[in-house]
Amino acid sequence: MSTKSFRQVNESLNQRIQQNPYGPNPADYLSNVGNFQLIESTLREGEQFANAFFDMETKIKIARALDDFGVDYIELTSPVASEQSRRDCEAICKLGLKAKILTHIRCHMDDARVAVETGVDGVDVVIGTSQFLRTYSHGKDMNYIAQSAIEVIEFVKSKGIEIRFSSEDSFRSDLVDLLNIYRTVDKIGVNRVGIADTVGCANPRQVYELVRTLKSVVNCDIECHFHNDTGCAIANAYTALEGGAKLVDVSVLGIGERNGITPLGGFMARMIAADRDYVLSKYKVHKIRDLENLIAEAVQVNIPFNNPITGFCAFTHKAGIHAKAILANPSTYEILNPSDFGLTRYIHFANRLTGWNAIKSRVDQLNLHLTDAQCKEVTEKIKKLGDVRQLNIDDVDSIIKDFHSDLTTPLVKPTSSGLPKVPHILEGLNESDA
Amino acid sequence: MSTKSFRQVNESLNQRIQQNPYGPNPADYLSNVGNFQLIESTLREGEQFANAFFDMETKIKIARALDDFGVDYIELTSPVASEQSRRDCEAICKLGLKAKILTHIRCHMDDARVAVETGVDGVDVVIGTSQFLRTYSHGKDMNYIAQSAIEVIEFVKSKGIEIRFSSEDSFRSDLVDLLNIYRTVDKIGVNRVGIADTVGCANPRQVYELVRTLKSVVNCDIECHFHNDTGCAIANAYTALEGGAKLVDVSVLGIGERNGITPLGGFMARMIAADRDYVLSKYKVHKIRDLENLIAEAVQVNIPFNNPITGFCAFTHKAGIHAKAILANPSTYEILNPSDFGLTRYIHFANRLTGWNAIKSRVDQLNLHLTDAQCKEVTEKIKKLGDVRQLNIDDVDSIIKDFHSDLTTPLVKPTSSGLPKVPHILEGLNESDA
Repeated sequence: MSTKSFRQVNESLNQRIQQNPYGPNPADYLSNVGNFQLIESTLREGEQFANAFFDMETKIKIARALDDFGVDYIELTSPVASEQSRRDCEAICKLGLKAKILTHIRCHMDDARVAVETGVDGVDVVIGTSQFLRTYSHGKDMNYIAQSAIEVIEFVKSKGIEIRFSSEDSFRSDLVDLLNIYRTVDKIGVNRVGIADTVGCANPRQVYELVRTLKSVVNCDIECHFHNDTGCAIANAYTALEGGAKLVDVSVLGIGERNGITPLGGFMARMIAADRDYVLSKYKVHKIRDLENLIAEAVQVNIPFNNPITGFCAFTHKAGIHAKAILANPSTYEILNPSDFGLTRYIHFANRLTGWNAIKSRVDQLNLHLTDAQCKEVTEKIKKLGDVRQLNIDDVDSIIKDFHSDLTTPLVKPTSSGLPKVPHILEGLNESDA
Repeated sequence: MSTKSFRQVNESLNQRIQQNPYGPNPADYLSNVGNFQLIESTLREGEQFANAFFDMETKIKIARALDDFGVDYIELTSPVASEQSRRDCEAICKLGLKAKILTHIRCHMDDARVAVETGVDGVDVVIGTSQFLRTYSHGKDMNYIAQSAIEVIEFVKSKGIEIRFSSEDSFRSDLVDLLNIYRTVDKIGVNRVGIADTVGCANPRQVYELVRTLKSVVNCDIECHFHNDTGCAIANAYTALEGGAKLVDVSVLGIGERNGITPLGGFMARMIAADRDYVLSKYKVHKIRDLENLIAEAVQVNIPFNNPITGFCAFTHKAGIHAKAILANPSTYEILNPSDFGLTRYIHFANRLTGWNAIKSRVDQLNLHLTDAQCKEVTEKIKKLGDVRQLNIDDVDSIIKDFHSDLTTPLVKPTSSGLPKVPHILEGLNESDA
C-alpha cells in the first residue's frame, strides 16, 4: 500500500468494485480487505476450548497443516501455562515452518523472560484494560499497565523478537485510556497493537469506528480478535479490515473460550467473496475441509451442519425456483464457487418443493428423453409423493423410470416394488418454478 | 417512535448507552435496535433446508412453539408449492395463534389468488430484481416487474390482507431500479418492503447504506432477509436495524437454503446484548433451547457445538486467568447471563490451563480447607497431570482429596487407585493466573 498513491489505490479498487459489488468499498482509503494477514490461534485460543487437549504430536500435526494452508502466523499457548506447554512451544519453533511462530503471554516480565527463550519469532502481550478486568482480574491501574508494558516491550525488542501489545476487553475500556496506552507503545516501537472483543459482543459499526480512530493515533499495524458469543465474529473482523486493521485472529472452526472466535473457514468464505484473487493467491482454500476435519477429530466435535463452505448442505439448492436458476447459471444463487474448495454443488430434487427444471435435469442425467410437458407431468407425481413422505433419489428415479416406461411401452407396464401407486393426473397444483 | 421527539429518543438512547456500551448508537436516529419485530420463517425458508420434511402435525407443533416464544409473524411455504402445503397453511391459519400468519409467494396473480383464500393475515411477495435473476430465472424486465407488483399488491390489499413486496438478490440489483420499484409499491400502500441478501454475501456497512437510502425513499416498514453463506447473517440483520429496518427474517438454527439464514437463537444473543429489557419483555428467551431441540430433531441435525447460547460450551470458561475473574464477577467475561436462558455457567478447572483460583473454588465446593499457598501447590500437581493426559473432574477431586489427606493424616497415606503418582514439588512453573 505504501508504494501506491491514494489515487492509484482508488482506481484499482473502483475497477474491482465494478467487477464485484461485494468487493472493497472505495470510500475506505485505509481498507486492508485486499491486503490482510492471518494469525492462526487454534494452538492458543483453541486450546482454551472446553474439549481441547492437544498432545505434542497433535500440536505438531496441526502446526504443519496450518503452515501448509498458508497462514501468516501461528500463535501458541503461553510457555508458562505448564511445563509441557513450554516444551511444545520449543518443539514447534524448531520445525522450520514458513509461518512465523508467536506465543501469547500476560504483560509481565516473569512471562516475557520465559517466552523469549523458546525460539519464537514474536510475542503477543495482552493485558485487561476495562474497568471490569482492572477491578476483578489483575487489579492494576493504567499507569501500572503502561509501566509494565514499556518494560516488557523494551525487553522483548532487545532480543530482536516481534512484539504485539493488545488490550483485553477493548470495547468496554475507556477510549482515552486506550488511545493513550496504544500511542505510548506505538512510540516505543511495537510491531502491532491489538484490539480484542473478549466478551464477544462488539457490533460491526462500533468496530469500524474504533479501528478508524486507532488508525489515526498509531503508525504500527492493527490486529483484531473477536469472540463469537453474539454471532458477529466474522462480520466484525471484516469490518475491522475495512477500517484499516491488517491482521485477524482466527482458529479452525472458531474453537476457543466459550463458543469461540472468528472461524478460519467462515472468514475465508467472507474474504473470498470480497477479493477472491488475493485469497486464492495466498491460501490453499481447498484444504479447509481437511483442516476442519483434523481439528474436529482432535477435539471430538462434529462439523456444524450449517458451517460456511463445509457444512453438509452449503452448496445444496432445494426450492424449485432456486434450482431452475442454478442450473442456468450457478452465480444466480451462489457467491462462492464450490470447486474453489474442492467441493461440488448439489441440486436437491427429491422433495415436494422441487420444480420441473430440476426434474428435467435429472431426466437428462438418467439419459431418458421426455418433453417439457412430460417433465412437468412427472414432476407433479413426484411432488404428490413428496407431500406424503420424505423422498430419496431412488424414489424419484423410480417414478421417472416408471413414467418413461408407461410412455414407451404402454401395454406392458412394470411396477417398481415398494413404491405407493401414484395417480397419473393431479389437479389444482401450480408449478412452483414456472 | 412516532409519538416521541428525536430529542426524547436521543436522551433515552444516551442513558442506555451510558449503562451499556453495546447498546443502540445515539447517532442512529432511525434505529430500530430497541424496537424490532421477528418474521419467523422456519416453516418457509426452513422447509427449503436440505433435510427438512415437516408433516402437518410437526408443522403445527412448530407453529405453536414459535407462537409461545412470542414471534411477531410466522411465515409459511407457498400454498402453490404442493397440495399438502396449501392444506398445512390453511390448518395453521385456523389455530388462532397470537402471531400473524404469512405465506410467501412469487409475484404472480396465479399464486396470489390461491394465497388469499388460505386464511393468512398477510402475503409476502418476492421477485428477483438482479440482472442475474432477471436473465436466468424469470426473464422479465423492470417494467414487467412493476406491472405485476402493482396488480398483485392491489389484489391482495382488496382482500384486506397485509402485503409485503420484496426484491430478491437486492444487493446485486441496480440501485436506481430498486429505489424506483420500492417507491412505486410504497405509494400504492404496501405494509412493508423487503430487502434480501439471497446469495448470502452482503457485508454490514453495505447493508447499513442500502437501508438508510431506502428509508429516505419509502414510508412503509422495511424488512430484511440475510443468508449466511459468508457468516454475516446476524451482523447484517443487526446493522439493518441500526439503519432503520424494523423486521428481521429468522429461522430456528438458521435452517434454510444452503447453510441458511439469520438464526433465531444467535440473533436473540445479539439483541439481548444491545437491549435486554426490550428482548425480555417480548420474547421467552428461556425457551430457545427447547425450540432448537424441537427443530434439530425434526430435521435430524445436531445443535452446532459452537452455537450461540445453546452450544454445549457457550458458558464454559477454561483458562486460569478467565476463571479467576469470572469467579469474582461473571460480567468480566460474559455479556450474556446464562440464567436468562435457563442455563448455567461452568468453570472448567480440570485441565492444564487451570489456575489456582479455579482450584480453590473447587476445594471450597468439596468443603475442604486449604490455605492459598496449599491451593497453589495442589494446582501445580493438577497441571502436571494435565500435561500428561486429558483430565476429568474425578481426577482433580482425587488429587485434591489425596493432598488434603496428606496434610491432615501424614502418617497414614491412602492411595487412590488408577492415578499416576505425582511428585510433590514441581520446579520451573509460573502461575498462569497469579
